[in-house]
Amino acid sequence: MSSPYCGHGRTHASRETLAFGRARGHIAAHMSATLLRLDPSRAQPSLEPMVQLVTGDMNMVNAVILSRMQSEIPLIPELAGHLIAGGGKRMRPMLTLASARLLSYTGTRHHRLAAAVEFIHTATLLHDDVVDGSDLRRGKRTANLIWGNPASVLVGDFLFSRSFELMVEDGSLKVLGILAGASAIIAEGEVNQLTAARRIDTPEERYLDIIGAKTAALFAAACRVAAVVAERPEAEELALDSYGRNLGIAFQLVDDAIDYVSDAGTMGKDAGDDFREGKATLPVILAYARSTGDDRIFWKAAIEGHRNRDEDFARAIELVRTTRAVDDTLARARHYGQRAIDALGIFANGKAKDAMIEAVEFAIARAY
Amino acid sequence: MSSPYCGHGRTHASRETLAFGRARGHIAAHMSATLLRLDPSRAQPSLEPMVQLVTGDMNMVNAVILSRMQSEIPLIPELAGHLIAGGGKRMRPMLTLASARLLSYTGTRHHRLAAAVEFIHTATLLHDDVVDGSDLRRGKRTANLIWGNPASVLVGDFLFSRSFELMVEDGSLKVLGILAGASAIIAEGEVNQLTAARRIDTPEERYLDIIGAKTAALFAAACRVAAVVAERPEAEELALDSYGRNLGIAFQLVDDAIDYVSDAGTMGKDAGDDFREGKATLPVILAYARSTGDDRIFWKAAIEGHRNRDEDFARAIELVRTTRAVDDTLARARHYGQRAIDALGIFANGKAKDAMIEAVEFAIARAY
Repeated sequence: MSSPYCGHGRTHASRETLAFGRARGHIAAHMSATLLRLDPSRAQPSLEPMVQLVTGDMNMVNAVILSRMQSEIPLIPELAGHLIAGGGKRMRPMLTLASARLLSYTGTRHHRLAAAVEFIHTATLLHDDVVDGSDLRRGKRTANLIWGNPASVLVGDFLFSRSFELMVEDGSLKVLGILAGASAIIAEGEVNQLTAARRIDTPEERYLDIIGAKTAALFAAACRVAAVVAERPEAEELALDSYGRNLGIAFQLVDDAIDYVSDAGTMGKDAGDDFREGKATLPVILAYARSTGDDRIFWKAAIEGHRNRDEDFARAIELVRTTRAVDDTLARARHYGQRAIDALGIFANGKAKDAMIEAVEFAIARAY
Repeated sequence: MSSPYCGHGRTHASRETLAFGRARGHIAAHMSATLLRLDPSRAQPSLEPMVQLVTGDMNMVNAVILSRMQSEIPLIPELAGHLIAGGGKRMRPMLTLASARLLSYTGTRHHRLAAAVEFIHTATLLHDDVVDGSDLRRGKRTANLIWGNPASVLVGDFLFSRSFELMVEDGSLKVLGILAGASAIIAEGEVNQLTAARRIDTPEERYLDIIGAKTAALFAAACRVAAVVAERPEAEELALDSYGRNLGIAFQLVDDAIDYVSDAGTMGKDAGDDFREGKATLPVILAYARSTGDDRIFWKAAIEGHRNRDEDFARAIELVRTTRAVDDTLARARHYGQRAIDALGIFANGKAKDAMIEAVEFAIARAY
């Protein structure tokens, strides 16, 4: 099974795929449950309850996605299909569907909107891989590698336009406003990240701004639109927004931590991508802040791109360990994960809420 | 004065700037007015009446554009401003404003929508220059050359999202549908063009499909939304759509013809861009269809990228002349230009209509 979290932004999802493998496989077996998870009573958090919860709805969403990525220009469905059919578990549309279920929504508007959310996400992934020059995503060759950057840029634009057409068909200006706003914030966050690239002096606040925009904004919007179609009071809209946003931040923090979790076996092959690309993620920011002398010089040089041999990464792993930078990145993730869970407090207990809580726990547990 | 037509798609607008110079300058002086223009009674068609017509409104649009391209991320206004402030004459928003004037619309909604139209256009230009690897636009260095492809892709995404935010603020689902639809068609046309690249066997129909999508769709939508905000009957909406669409096609045909109008002096520096990039524009399609033997082999090799020396371009110029391929490209342009003018037939005569008619004549006259 590949990753249910379609990592967004500059992260390499092939790594996420492995991360998921870890959570499910040998790493999960070693994990210190009572120490690390939010709810120690749950033996092994899983995304499965959420997947089960929305199976029927997701089939409808997939039908919308398939029909609306078609075009008379064959390259469009070919390229879009490579990514859309390519192993992602539709985390964002799943959040829309689970949120609708939480609210006992019985209509069908969320199917179209969940597809729109997935199109926005897919468009962003296509552009991200061009921006990063990535050649692997979810363990497969990227679209830009196969069809070139021009095709990826333009098919991304097409999917983005198509997502707005889907929203217009839904007919809610409120939904349009939420998703147009999220799209602008995502793009702003991507530019922010670009200008922070290779800067060891990126403050934690700026890093949080970036992941809040590039990852959490769409998680938040995906959840929030469910409250709009279900015509629920603003307090519930905001609660779902908060759930999605905090889950998104927690997810990204864990993803960034995983890059510095070394393993001699299969895992090592994907860990270190962020390091080699000079990304000032939180583990680096914390390790740098807690270092002195030669170590500081090492981090600066590494993020500027002058330390990308295997032994450099080994030293980085050692430094994030001794400074507890990964531990504290994960502590931050647990903080946001707890906030996500608490945001659900106003909703009635039940299967949907349980599944949404467990999804947060799962997002965090996959780091261990 | 730089070009009032911000050429879209794969055309190099630096060439357009010169083309405009030609129409205004020595070429215009040589032009055979009675033969070439749609209305021989007008000595020298100009865009000036349309510019004058909308001056006050355009100041409002510029204020919206300036305020809405701002962001806390400094690179965004910096990069967007380079292109937006950089010599374009805002042809598409001008069409929205002129159309609103034609309908005697007295509100202010069109200011925001004209800005949205310009943002869509600017986003497309940024992505086009990345796709084409262009280094000059409107005689200036392109954003991708200065800030790199990643920044251009992401700021394009930002402007595109911002344009939808502007439309959402306007609050008309109908307008949103028109512009979201146009955006999807533009992207589809760009992908279509990409897959037709370097193919000498591109049929005229496919070429017309491409320019109808990548250039004419936004011209049409820019005009049409004016009828929506002015709450006019569908017949007027469709008439304005038709005006914009046919003007857009005529404009692009002329632009593609200009690439094969050689001049030993200043002009030669920009003519030939399409040829060297292997673009199967209509002059090439017609010349190829009318050639035999070695000339066909030459065209095929040229479009596939194996004939890009100056003497090859000289031969191409000679072939499009002897086959009358440029003449007939311009004849096609006049056909669409005439249709644009006839689409205005249902509207009352007056300054606005005169200016819109003269804009069509101007678009065509700039080729001579």
